[in-house]
Amino acid sequence: MSSPTGNIYDRDPSEDVIQQLKSIATKLRMDSIKCTNAAKSGHPTSCASCADILAVLFWHTMKHNPEDPRNPNNDRFILSKGHAAPILYSVQVELGHVKEEELENLRKIDSDLEGHPTPRLDFVDVATGSLGQGLSCAAGMAYGAKYIDKASLRVFCVMGDGESAEGSVWEAMHFASHYKLNNLIACIDVNRLGQSEPTSIGHDMDTYKRRCEAFGWKTFVVDGHDVRSLVQVFFDARQSEDKPVMILAKTFKGKGLPGIENELEWHGKALGDKADKILQALNETTKGAKPVTLVPERPAKAELEVITPTKVALSDKPEYEIGKLMATRQAYGTALVKLATVYPRIIALDCDVKNSTFSENLKKVYPQRFIECFIAEQNAVGVAIGLGTRHRFIPFLSTFAAFFSRGYDQIRMGAISQANVKFVGSHVGVSIGEDGPSQMALEDIAMFRAIPNCTVFYPSDAVSTERACELAANVEGMCFIRTGRPANPVIYKGDETFEVGKAKVIRQSETDVVTVIGGGVTLHEAIKAAEQLAGKGVNIRVVDLFTIKPLDADTIVKHAKMTKGRVVTVEDHYPEGGLGDAVASVLAQYPDIVMKKLAVKQLPRSGPPQALVDMYEIGAKSIVAAVEGDWANTIGQK
Amino acid sequence: MSSPTGNIYDRDPSEDVIQQLKSIATKLRMDSIKCTNAAKSGHPTSCASCADILAVLFWHTMKHNPEDPRNPNNDRFILSKGHAAPILYSVQVELGHVKEEELENLRKIDSDLEGHPTPRLDFVDVATGSLGQGLSCAAGMAYGAKYIDKASLRVFCVMGDGESAEGSVWEAMHFASHYKLNNLIACIDVNRLGQSEPTSIGHDMDTYKRRCEAFGWKTFVVDGHDVRSLVQVFFDARQSEDKPVMILAKTFKGKGLPGIENELEWHGKALGDKADKILQALNETTKGAKPVTLVPERPAKAELEVITPTKVALSDKPEYEIGKLMATRQAYGTALVKLATVYPRIIALDCDVKNSTFSENLKKVYPQRFIECFIAEQNAVGVAIGLGTRHRFIPFLSTFAAFFSRGYDQIRMGAISQANVKFVGSHVGVSIGEDGPSQMALEDIAMFRAIPNCTVFYPSDAVSTERACELAANVEGMCFIRTGRPANPVIYKGDETFEVGKAKVIRQSETDVVTVIGGGVTLHEAIKAAEQLAGKGVNIRVVDLFTIKPLDADTIVKHAKMTKGRVVTVEDHYPEGGLGDAVASVLAQYPDIVMKKLAVKQLPRSGPPQALVDMYEIGAKSIVAAVEGDWANTIGQK
Repeated sequence: MSSPTGNIYDRDPSEDVIQQLKSIATKLRMDSIKCTNAAKSGHPTSCASCADILAVLFWHTMKHNPEDPRNPNNDRFILSKGHAAPILYSVQVELGHVKEEELENLRKIDSDLEGHPTPRLDFVDVATGSLGQGLSCAAGMAYGAKYIDKASLRVFCVMGDGESAEGSVWEAMHFASHYKLNNLIACIDVNRLGQSEPTSIGHDMDTYKRRCEAFGWKTFVVDGHDVRSLVQVFFDARQSEDKPVMILAKTFKGKGLPGIENELEWHGKALGDKADKILQALNETTKGAKPVTLVPERPAKAELEVITPTKVALSDKPEYEIGKLMATRQAYGTALVKLATVYPRIIALDCDVKNSTFSENLKKVYPQRFIECFIAEQNAVGVAIGLGTRHRFIPFLSTFAAFFSRGYDQIRMGAISQANVKFVGSHVGVSIGEDGPSQMALEDIAMFRAIPNCTVFYPSDAVSTERACELAANVEGMCFIRTGRPANPVIYKGDETFEVGKAKVIRQSETDVVTVIGGGVTLHEAIKAAEQLAGKGVNIRVVDLFTIKPLDADTIVKHAKMTKGRVVTVEDHYPEGGLGDAVASVLAQYPDIVMKKLAVKQLPRSGPPQALVDMYEIGAKSIVAAVEGDWANTIGQK
Repeated sequence: MSSPTGNIYDRDPSEDVIQQLKSIATKLRMDSIKCTNAAKSGHPTSCASCADILAVLFWHTMKHNPEDPRNPNNDRFILSKGHAAPILYSVQVELGHVKEEELENLRKIDSDLEGHPTPRLDFVDVATGSLGQGLSCAAGMAYGAKYIDKASLRVFCVMGDGESAEGSVWEAMHFASHYKLNNLIACIDVNRLGQSEPTSIGHDMDTYKRRCEAFGWKTFVVDGHDVRSLVQVFFDARQSEDKPVMILAKTFKGKGLPGIENELEWHGKALGDKADKILQALNETTKGAKPVTLVPERPAKAELEVITPTKVALSDKPEYEIGKLMATRQAYGTALVKLATVYPRIIALDCDVKNSTFSENLKKVYPQRFIECFIAEQNAVGVAIGLGTRHRFIPFLSTFAAFFSRGYDQIRMGAISQANVKFVGSHVGVSIGEDGPSQMALEDIAMFRAIPNCTVFYPSDAVSTERACELAANVEGMCFIRTGRPANPVIYKGDETFEVGKAKVIRQSETDVVTVIGGGVTLHEAIKAAEQLAGKGVNIRVVDLFTIKPLDADTIVKHAKMTKGRVVTVEDHYPEGGLGDAVASVLAQYPDIVMKKLAVKQLPRSGPPQALVDMYEIGAKSIVAAVEGDWANTIGQK
């Protein structure tokens, strides 16, 4: 093979190269049809529209080693339109990385070729399938590669047109141009048809172009089925010097599938008994074509090494006087710097509240390792997920905990991506005070508990917060650390050891009649209650869970039994899905243990923090009442 | 007062009118400074930047009766930058609707003048404070006014520049131009400064303009402190014939506050001891000004009546043969049409999955009452919240339940807005099958349970689904209805009655040894398990909760006690925050009742629905094992 310039990977390769790319695209369409037909479900028409794009990207534009898809020097690829998974799998078959017969197992329970791509597959970095998320992850990878790893790799992201209605896409567009991510190349497969009707913009390529340009991207419109044009435009895209690049590819859904191309009713359907005839027709088009000998160009340079996770420890142990008032959010800022000092791959991200979450501490010391994501939480989560891929970075993303609800779909998908992001949410509960309910996280524990494999830390003082951060940096997977706004007394000595899933008994005597379990502000209220009750000759045990997930069921049950089978939980959170529900879920398995749950039972309002804590019955007075009150009656029901 | 055209509300009012507007703006700045100083917190500088805008809007542009803020013919106003609440309160003081002395109570626990606006105040339709949400709500109001109510009112939305980074804003921009909402007028107060640093776009008005125009809006750039220009540009905005209008107002944070204007460090801070001098300086500027006599223009026509909620009933009772296979999502489509037939203010919204959720049934019969929101769930939630204000419409918003996670912050804020939206989430749990985890809602119950005042329905057959929809239409507030993908047998007769918070015992005998509680697919698995166990001479009770919130604690406890204190919960949901946690939260209060929870304990994968139900141990086999297995041991711990 040769090209006018002598290099097959150049802007104007020979006709032979173009013919081979066309043959590959046809093969990808055929593979996609066959495997979705075998599965009796899937999205073959969404595959057909991007077949030419993927052929050009994987065999001509991208520099990668298909035998070693996790090689850190490879260009990256994200299929944001995850429902086109079959064509990505077909690409891997044609590249020789996945066995052809495995395609027959698409969507089967024992195959990793799932309905939408997940990192169970070594050629997938992030899971997709909830639309509009891929670009943020790609932007995170591109940011890390350009600014921190200082590598020359490119990140490619193929999106659907329907998903460009998602606001998260425009958050990512803004982020990428703001940070001049010229190593990020996205392509929208504008096939005009959504699931249930045509997209709102259809084939109006000008509108797409104006929007992308207005958001600061170098933008090309191209016929997404013209292989030579695609080769050229992607070649040009690689030359961008300070802007991310958007390729708007005008395509047809079901392209090349006679009777199906450009028809509405074929979203998410296998072709069934129409398949044979269509496969025949596709096969016809490759007749006489030379066999494919084209292979992808390998990365020019081996710039990056594989990162192996290593243990990360605080540079200095926590140093606080017992009883000193210190907000856990402030201890987070301290811990972040201590960890970053030891491990250069600790990165902090924030959403324009860094002076409230204290992530600005890191920015002050290591400005290159802080990423301001502005007020765009969805994208921030996606960027963090992207940064965390392949162990390249350990991203700590902070904002007000309430605003993680903005990125909950991204967090949900992060679990499927096996993401390694540490979420740090401050300003939780009514104890934030006057700003009122819009700023109060009261459902954050419920949110993060329901994420599989997510570790939920709820440290209650500065020492345990620093240790929570240290443990989180070492946990493989997603973590949530709940920090608070008010300053509360330090409880632990600096050398206290903490473990994931291990609670601490912070106050006990042999005559304790109830175990009280709190977290953050309410743990301090429990301590106050214990002191008040002790004055009346009633002793209670106080437990600090430290981690809410995994939960230390053994400690809870053991101490519940030692305190007459009585437990009170108290939390600055709504009653559903939080600390109380976590404990109830354990205690419901045991007879002879009864539990009362104190939580914020109404929509709260603005007011002074302590007044709100008392008003919503999660303060010392309410704990005392729960311990003293009708307990005799409850136990009496036995 | 007179103007060149003789009408003070015209485009070119007299200098006297302009002077009065300026005096009002100064007064608003002073009020905002005073009340935040009294509260010792708040955002006076964010108020100062939009003082001129609000003066012009409330006293010149908007047609409204300030004595009757809920009058349906008033123009609507949303302060999307909710942290500028003090200036909105100041407006109401200067309009004479709120007493001046009430401003002193800003942010106090017994005042409705909270840190951010909520509809506890009669001049607030939707709560704001989580940024980037107001425009979607405004678009919902504008859509309803234009297309359904066919009223001439306008909807105004004042936004911050920082919040324009939120993707939800661009979803709303796209929605509004797609639907030609020329009755929607937004204004971005471009004051250049965020909380922790300058915004990413700063005062680059051209970039804002290009973006807004590319998104299809008629766009004006204006000096946001030039009152005459503001009067003119808002006047022109009202004349738009087919496009929504964006006013980009270049402003300065802290405008008019000497020493503070345009300085970064003053976000979210009361002025403290600087206040007196600044108030003096502001007061100086009004010296010699004539007293304000200007009052807002009233709405020209009384087109709309106040809507009083009325009882809504299905047009026909559910008609299904017992045992017939029918997906609950399909029954939703049927119910929607039955309700809409009876009550013309039932509206359905969907996010391009209407052929999967069955909301398309409504579109087929009443196309004017269906709103396609495309793949932009955040905006869809906001639009629905806007539609539901003032009881004008009862919006039912459907999508895959997993994708409500995309709008969780909007849903959270919906509770604070006292929104009246009915969320209907289909495709829940592993029982959706081959599409895989990205499409499976497994945290949706946790999400919606944690929303205060949200009713959570989990109907398990077609009859109860229709009744859930009917009840939801009559509940004042937010509801979630969890529907499923697979077809399951009809359980109930058409005349069965259902109530919110009342469970159904669907199988019982005098010798039952365990109560099994399921929902949706798992209720049918419980019935299968009961049949299998009965074959072995073991009887179990089967309970259908119907609503998970409020929970029918009495029925659960009563039957648990009648079945040897043994309960098994089984759910197609993660173990945290779902049906099992809801039940555990009740049972943990009782000794002598023990509970086992079956739930999806791992991140699932693609596969056939029944195979996944079995694999993740929520099927009949696992229920049988839970009933038969180690129960003796557990009880033995007593």
